[in-house]
Amino acid sequence: MLQGQTILRIPGPTPIPPQVELAMSQPMIGHRSGDFSKLFAETSERLKPLFQTTQDVLILAGSGTAGLEAAVANTVSAGDTVLVATAGNFGERFIKLAAAYGAKVLRVDAPWGQGIDALQIQEQLIQHPEIKVVFATHCETSTGVLHDIESIAAVVKPTQALLVVDAVSSLGGADLKMDAWGVDIVITGSQKALMLPPGLTFLALSEKAWQVVNGNQSPRFYFDLRAYRKKLVESTSPYTPNVTMILGLVEVLNMIEAEGLQNVFARHQLMKEMTRAAGRALGLPLFAPDRVAAPTVTSFGAEGFDPEQVRKILRTDFGITVAGGQQHLKGQIFRIGHMGYCSPVDVFQVLSALEIALVKAGAQIELGSGVRAAQQVYLQAGEVVAHV
Amino acid sequence: MLQGQTILRIPGPTPIPPQVELAMSQPMIGHRSGDFSKLFAETSERLKPLFQTTQDVLILAGSGTAGLEAAVANTVSAGDTVLVATAGNFGERFIKLAAAYGAKVLRVDAPWGQGIDALQIQEQLIQHPEIKVVFATHCETSTGVLHDIESIAAVVKPTQALLVVDAVSSLGGADLKMDAWGVDIVITGSQKALMLPPGLTFLALSEKAWQVVNGNQSPRFYFDLRAYRKKLVESTSPYTPNVTMILGLVEVLNMIEAEGLQNVFARHQLMKEMTRAAGRALGLPLFAPDRVAAPTVTSFGAEGFDPEQVRKILRTDFGITVAGGQQHLKGQIFRIGHMGYCSPVDVFQVLSALEIALVKAGAQIELGSGVRAAQQVYLQAGEVVAHV
Repeated sequence: MLQGQTILRIPGPTPIPPQVELAMSQPMIGHRSGDFSKLFAETSERLKPLFQTTQDVLILAGSGTAGLEAAVANTVSAGDTVLVATAGNFGERFIKLAAAYGAKVLRVDAPWGQGIDALQIQEQLIQHPEIKVVFATHCETSTGVLHDIESIAAVVKPTQALLVVDAVSSLGGADLKMDAWGVDIVITGSQKALMLPPGLTFLALSEKAWQVVNGNQSPRFYFDLRAYRKKLVESTSPYTPNVTMILGLVEVLNMIEAEGLQNVFARHQLMKEMTRAAGRALGLPLFAPDRVAAPTVTSFGAEGFDPEQVRKILRTDFGITVAGGQQHLKGQIFRIGHMGYCSPVDVFQVLSALEIALVKAGAQIELGSGVRAAQQVYLQAGEVVAHV
Repeated sequence: MLQGQTILRIPGPTPIPPQVELAMSQPMIGHRSGDFSKLFAETSERLKPLFQTTQDVLILAGSGTAGLEAAVANTVSAGDTVLVATAGNFGERFIKLAAAYGAKVLRVDAPWGQGIDALQIQEQLIQHPEIKVVFATHCETSTGVLHDIESIAAVVKPTQALLVVDAVSSLGGADLKMDAWGVDIVITGSQKALMLPPGLTFLALSEKAWQVVNGNQSPRFYFDLRAYRKKLVESTSPYTPNVTMILGLVEVLNMIEAEGLQNVFARHQLMKEMTRAAGRALGLPLFAPDRVAAPTVTSFGAEGFDPEQVRKILRTDFGITVAGGQQHLKGQIFRIGHMGYCSPVDVFQVLSALEIALVKAGAQIELGSGVRAAQQVYLQAGEVVAHV
C-alpha cells in the first residue's frame, strides 16, 4: 500500500470533498458575529429541502447518537410506553436510549438483514394504544437494510404516537419524504451522505412532535430542543456552534444543490446496483435482499473465505478500509460504504481491489467479473449518469 | 462526474500526497533563518541517493525547462558543436535551447515511440570529435519511451563530451545511476515522480561537467550554477528559495526513504506492467515497444476509436484526466501517467474507467478484460508488492 493513501469505503465517516476541506480551512470567526449568525440561519434554511420538510432544521454539535438522545429526551418521560422497531445494531441503540430515560420498551423485531414489517407495528399500536413514540431506523448501517419508513409512517400517522426516524446513514443518499410521509422527527449526522467530519447532528420535528416535546418531563438541558428552536428565530444557537463545520456544510449544500437532490439519489442508487451486480457475478451472498437494500451501504456474506482476512488484505495491499460485521455478525459479513463523496469510478476501484483480496483469501472467483458486471450496470444507466 | 473529484493520470503534474500537502501548509518561515538554512542543506544532501551521486544536488526555483536551460547555459557557448539525441517533444526542446545559445546543433533521431540507438551517437562522436555536449532524454514524456542512458553514457564517457540528461519524468520512478553510468548532468523537476507541485528543478553535475561550467562563456545570472554550488557550502541558495516546496520536499524524501528507492522503482515497474497487460488484453496498440517502455507513463495508439473522445469521456464521466498526443501525435495516441503518488489500486481505477470510455467511443473490447489482465500481473508480482 502507498503511504498516506486512505481509501475510506466504510459506511461513514466518508471522504471529505476537497472543496469542503478548503472551506473548513478558512480562519475562525466569532460564533456570535452578525456574519456568522446570518450564515447559520441561511444554512439551517437550506437544510429543509434535504429533509423534505417545511419545519425548522436544528443543528447541534454532537455525534449522531447525540441526535438520537435528543429525540428521546424530548419525547420520552419515565414510565412512558414506546415501541422500537429493530433489526440491527442501531435499532438496539434506540432501545438502550429509551430504557435510559425510564421508558417501558416494546419491540418489533426483524432478523438482522431483513426489513421491518409495518403490519407488525400496526398490530402493536392497536394492542398498546398507550404507545407514545415509535422509533425506527431508516438505513440500518449494521446490515445494509433500508427500512420501509413510508409504510411504517402510514400506520403510525393515524395514531397518537410519534414516529421518530434515525436517518443518520440515509439522509442525503436515500429518499425520505418527512412531511409527505408524515414522519415526526428525523435525525441525521454530518459524517455520512453529508460528506462532513463527524461532529454535527441535525433534527427536524413536526408540529405533532413539538406538542409532545413541550409537554415532556425528562430532565434535559443541552439536548432541550426548545432552546434550539427558540434561538433559531434569532439566527443563532443556544450553545457554541461548530463554526468550522458550518462553513463546510455551506459548501456541502452548494454541492448538493448544484447536483440536484434527485440526481444525488440516482447516483447512490446506481452505486448500489453496481456493487450488488458485482457481488452476484462474484458469487458473494447479498446479505440484504434486493427489495430492502440500502443505496448507501452494501453488506456481503462470506462463503469459502474469511471476511476479516479480506478486509485486512484490502487495508494492507491498497489502503482501502471496508467495514466488518457488528455484534453477532462480526466475522460473518463485510460492508462496503458508497455514500456521500463517492462516485461510480470509486466503486470500480474498490471492486477491482476486492477481487484481488478475495483471490488472496482463497475464494473461487473469476478475476474481472465483478468489475465487468458493475461496468455493464453503469453503461445501461447511461441516462442517469448524464445528469450527475 | 462527481464535483471536485480530480483524478490526475497525466505524466505530471501528479497528485500530491496528503502528508506533503500538510507539510506545505505550515506557516511561512524566513528563508535566511538558521532553521531554514539547516533544513535546506540537509534536504539537498538527502537528494544525493535519489540522483545516485556523491555530487551536490542544486535546487532552483523554476520549472523543468528552467533546469534544462541552466544545463545548456552553463555548458554551451555560441559556436560550440553539440549533439542532441531526440525522439520526441522534449528532445526537440534541447535543440531549441542549444540553438538559443548559439550552438551548432547536430542530431541523432529515432522515430517518436522508439529508442535512441547509442551506436549512432558513437558514430557522430567519432565523426565530430569537436562535439562538446551530448543532450539526451531519459524518459521521453511525449512518447512513453525510456531511452537507454546507460548505453549512451558508455559511448560518451571515453570522449571529451559531456552527457546531459533530462530526467524530469523519470528520476524517482526509473533507475538512473548517475555516477556509476557516468552521466555528467542530471536534471529533474518537482512535479513528476517527486510528487510535488511544479516549481522546483534539481541538477547534479560531475567534476567533468564543473570544469566545463567554469570555463563556459554564455551570459547567465539566475541560471549560473556556480552561484548555487558556492552558496550551498553556506547551506543556502543565492536567490530566494521556494520555502514552502522545500518543506514539502522534506516529506517527499521521508516517504521515499521509508518505502526504499528500489521498492519505489519496483512499484513503478509493476504499474507499467499492469497497464501494458491491460492494453494487450484490450487490443490497444502499445506505442512504445516493451524493451524501451517507460515505468512512469504508458502511451497507447488508437484503432477504431478517437483517443480525444476517450479522453473527454474519462473527464466528463469520471473526472479522470489522461494526456493526449503532442505535436504530430495529437489525436493519434493517448498517455496514462502512473508515477509518484500512484499505486496499483489507482491503476485498476483508471483501467476500469478506460474500458467504459472505450465502449462509449465505439471500440470493440470485452468489458473487464483489461482490469483482469492487470489483476493477474498484480497477483503474480505478489512478492514485490509485499515490500511496498
